[in-house]
Amino acid sequence: MAELTGNCLIGQSGGPTAVINASVAGAVSEALNHSCIEEIYGCVNGVLGILNEDFVDLASESQQTIRGLKHTPGAALGTCRYKLKKQQDFDRVLEVFKAHNIRYFFYAGGNDSQDTADKISKLAQQQGYELRVIGIPKTIDNDLPITDHTPGYGSVVKYICTTVKELACDNEAMGQHDLVSILEVMGRSAGWIAAGAALAKRRDHPYDPPHLIYLPEVPFTTEKFVEDVRRVLKREKYCLIVVGEGLVDPDGNYVSTASGQTDAFGHSQLGGAGDYLKDLVEKHLGIKARSAKLGIPQRAAAHSASKADVDEAFMAGAAAVKAAVSGVTDKMVTLVRGEADHYVCETGLADLSDIANGVKKLPREWVNEDGVSMNHQFVRYATPLIQGESVPPYDHGVPVFARLDKVSVDKVLPPYET
Amino acid sequence: MAELTGNCLIGQSGGPTAVINASVAGAVSEALNHSCIEEIYGCVNGVLGILNEDFVDLASESQQTIRGLKHTPGAALGTCRYKLKKQQDFDRVLEVFKAHNIRYFFYAGGNDSQDTADKISKLAQQQGYELRVIGIPKTIDNDLPITDHTPGYGSVVKYICTTVKELACDNEAMGQHDLVSILEVMGRSAGWIAAGAALAKRRDHPYDPPHLIYLPEVPFTTEKFVEDVRRVLKREKYCLIVVGEGLVDPDGNYVSTASGQTDAFGHSQLGGAGDYLKDLVEKHLGIKARSAKLGIPQRAAAHSASKADVDEAFMAGAAAVKAAVSGVTDKMVTLVRGEADHYVCETGLADLSDIANGVKKLPREWVNEDGVSMNHQFVRYATPLIQGESVPPYDHGVPVFARLDKVSVDKVLPPYET
Repeated sequence: MAELTGNCLIGQSGGPTAVINASVAGAVSEALNHSCIEEIYGCVNGVLGILNEDFVDLASESQQTIRGLKHTPGAALGTCRYKLKKQQDFDRVLEVFKAHNIRYFFYAGGNDSQDTADKISKLAQQQGYELRVIGIPKTIDNDLPITDHTPGYGSVVKYICTTVKELACDNEAMGQHDLVSILEVMGRSAGWIAAGAALAKRRDHPYDPPHLIYLPEVPFTTEKFVEDVRRVLKREKYCLIVVGEGLVDPDGNYVSTASGQTDAFGHSQLGGAGDYLKDLVEKHLGIKARSAKLGIPQRAAAHSASKADVDEAFMAGAAAVKAAVSGVTDKMVTLVRGEADHYVCETGLADLSDIANGVKKLPREWVNEDGVSMNHQFVRYATPLIQGESVPPYDHGVPVFARLDKVSVDKVLPPYET
Repeated sequence: MAELTGNCLIGQSGGPTAVINASVAGAVSEALNHSCIEEIYGCVNGVLGILNEDFVDLASESQQTIRGLKHTPGAALGTCRYKLKKQQDFDRVLEVFKAHNIRYFFYAGGNDSQDTADKISKLAQQQGYELRVIGIPKTIDNDLPITDHTPGYGSVVKYICTTVKELACDNEAMGQHDLVSILEVMGRSAGWIAAGAALAKRRDHPYDPPHLIYLPEVPFTTEKFVEDVRRVLKREKYCLIVVGEGLVDPDGNYVSTASGQTDAFGHSQLGGAGDYLKDLVEKHLGIKARSAKLGIPQRAAAHSASKADVDEAFMAGAAAVKAAVSGVTDKMVTLVRGEADHYVCETGLADLSDIANGVKKLPREWVNEDGVSMNHQFVRYATPLIQGESVPPYDHGVPVFARLDKVSVDKVLPPYET
C-alpha cells in the first residue's frame, strides 16, 4: 500500500460521553507520529462542520489542552445529530475534503455516525477520491455490534453504581418504614446502562441494592412490578429501583414518554419512566416513593469516570489513526477482549457497514429469571469496564476541564446552505 | 464544675448528608479520650432508638470502621423524622437515659432535631437528672442560625458545581441550536443549595454557566423567567438553569408540588420544579428543554465530598464531646469563621433554644439585582466550603462504605409503644 500523504480530519457526533474527548486526544497524539499526516484538523459539530467548512487546527492546541481532553466531558469539537440526506450534502462533503486535501477522516460516534462515515467512504471510492475513513466507537448505550463494548459505557455505569451505593446508604438510614426509591437512567433501546447498576452489589450479595432493575428487554407490567416491590419490602426496609428510560409494555410501547417528541433520526425523546414507577408505587401500594432522574449529567460525569474506559477511549482513537496510516479504510475500531481470565483489551477492526445502524442487544440470558436482576455472566462481562478512578484536576474546589482554542482553518469555498 | 461520670449516647436525626457520619466519627474518637465517659452508645434511628431502648455499642466498632465513617454517606446509626410530642414520650426518654446512666447526649441534626435536644435537656434539668446535651449541626440546607455554615452544605454544593460544569460541557457540545437545560436541586425553604451552584463559574466570568439560578427567596413569575431565558439565548448557544425545589410564586405558593404530601413536621414534600420550568420553556419559547432531578443522591454524594466539609463535620463532633466533658450543656456546636482573609474555621457554642426551629435565610443582598445570580459576597462566603477532595476508598470499581456492626446493648426496660 502506497503511503497516502495529506491532511486528517477528526469529528465527533451524537450524544457526548465522559470519554469521547479522550478518543480525540488519542487520535491527535497518534497523528503527530506520522509524517504522512500533514495537518490535523477537527470539524466543528460533526458533519455540520464539514458542510460549513468549519475546521479548527488541532495541531496548534497546547499539549496541556490535548492531555486535559482525557478528563473533559462533552465533545470538545462540538457534536451534532444532523443526518446527511441529500446527494447534495454528500457532494459537498467531498468538495470540502478535496479543497482541504483531507485524506484521513476519523469519526467518533454511535450507530448513526458510523453509518454517516460509511456513506462518505463509499462515495469517495465511487468518485475515485482516495480517502481513508475509520470510525471510532462511542456511546454510553453500549449497543454497537461486533465491538466487545463501547467507550463511554464503563464510565456511565461506574457513576450509576456509585450513585446507587450512596443512595442506598441514605435510604437505609431512613429505614423505619417502607421506602421506595427510584433512579431513572438512560438507555433508549437497550438496558445495558440500567443493567450496569447490578455492579453496585457486592459479590455473592444478591439482595444488595439495587433490589430491582427494570430493562427495556423485559416487557413491563404493573402487576408484576407491584408484586416485585412487595416481595422486596417483605425482606428489606427499603426498595431501591433502577429503571431504564426506555421501559416498554408487552406491546412494545414506551410506558412513559415525556413529550412525544422525536429527534432528527426519528427516535422518541424519552423521560419520565422513574416518575411513572413512583406514581404506581404510591397508587398501588400506598407507600411513599422518591425518584431521581440523573439525566444528561450521567453521561458527562468525568469526575467519576472509569480509568479503564478513559484509557480504552484513548487507545481507540490512536488505533484509528494507526489503521488508516497502514492503509485500512471503511472500518470502525472495535474493542476486543482477550480470552484469558485476566481482563485484557485490544483493538480490532470491523466493516463500517456491519456497524452502521446495527444494535447489540443485552443478551436475554444474562438477565435472571426474575427479570429484575443480572446474572454472573453479565457481572463478569461488565466488571472490568468500571475499574480504576480517573480524576480530573481540581481548582478552587471544582474540576477544571480543557477547552480548545479552536484556531479556525481558512475557508476556501463559498458558503453552503444546509 | 464537678466531673460527671457516666455513659454517652450519640444520635443522628433528620435527612442524612454526605458528612453526618464524619461527625459521629469525631464524637466517638473524642469520647475515647475521656475516662469520665464510660460507655459510648449510639441510638438507632434517632429519638426512636431512645424510645425503643435500641442502643448499639460504638466503642466495640473497629477503628477501621470508625475511620471509614468519614467517607460514608447516609446516617450509619439510622435517622428518623419522628417528633417527640406527648409528655409520655419525654418521660420515656428520661427513663431510658436513667436506666442506662446516659449522662452525655450528642444529637446531630437540623432545626427540628436541635429543638428535640433542647426539650430533652430542659426536661432533665426540671427533673434534677444531671445530663449534658450538646447538639451537632447537620443539614445540607445550611439554614441553621448563628453557625457560620452547617456540615453537609459544602459537599452538596461541591457535587452540584461539579455536575453543572460537566453538564455545561455536554450542553456546549450540542450547541448548534437553542438548548435549555434545567437542573433541579434541593432546598425546601432557602436557596442556599441552588445559590451554591454559582461557584461553578470561573472568577470574573459572570456569563459562565449556570446562566440562571432560581431561588425560593426571589418570587418566581413566568414573564420574567421567559425574558431571562430569551436574554441568555441571545448571548449563548445554550441556557443552563439551576432551580431550587422550593421555588415560590409572588403569593408564596410553591410553583410545583409533586404530590401534595407533607412530612411529620408538616413540611411539604416537594419535587418537580425542574419539570415545571421545562414545560414553561417548551410552551412559551418553543425550544427543546431537558431536565434532571438530582434528588436524594445529591445529599449522599460522598464520592464528591468537600474535604473542608468532612474535616469540619468531624471537628464539630469532637467539639461537642469536649464541651460536654468540660461542663457545658444545652448548646449546639457552631462553626465560626475567622476574621482573617485566609479562611479559618473554629467551633463555638450557641444555646439550643436559639437554634431550635430557627431559619437562616440567604441574605437577599447576596443575590444580584437580576435575581438569578449571586454576587461576590456570596462567592467569598461559600468558596472555602467546597475546597479539597475527600475520596472514599474503592474496591472493584465502586466506593466502599463503612457499615457498623451494631452490637446491641441489652435492654433493661419493658417495651414502649410509640
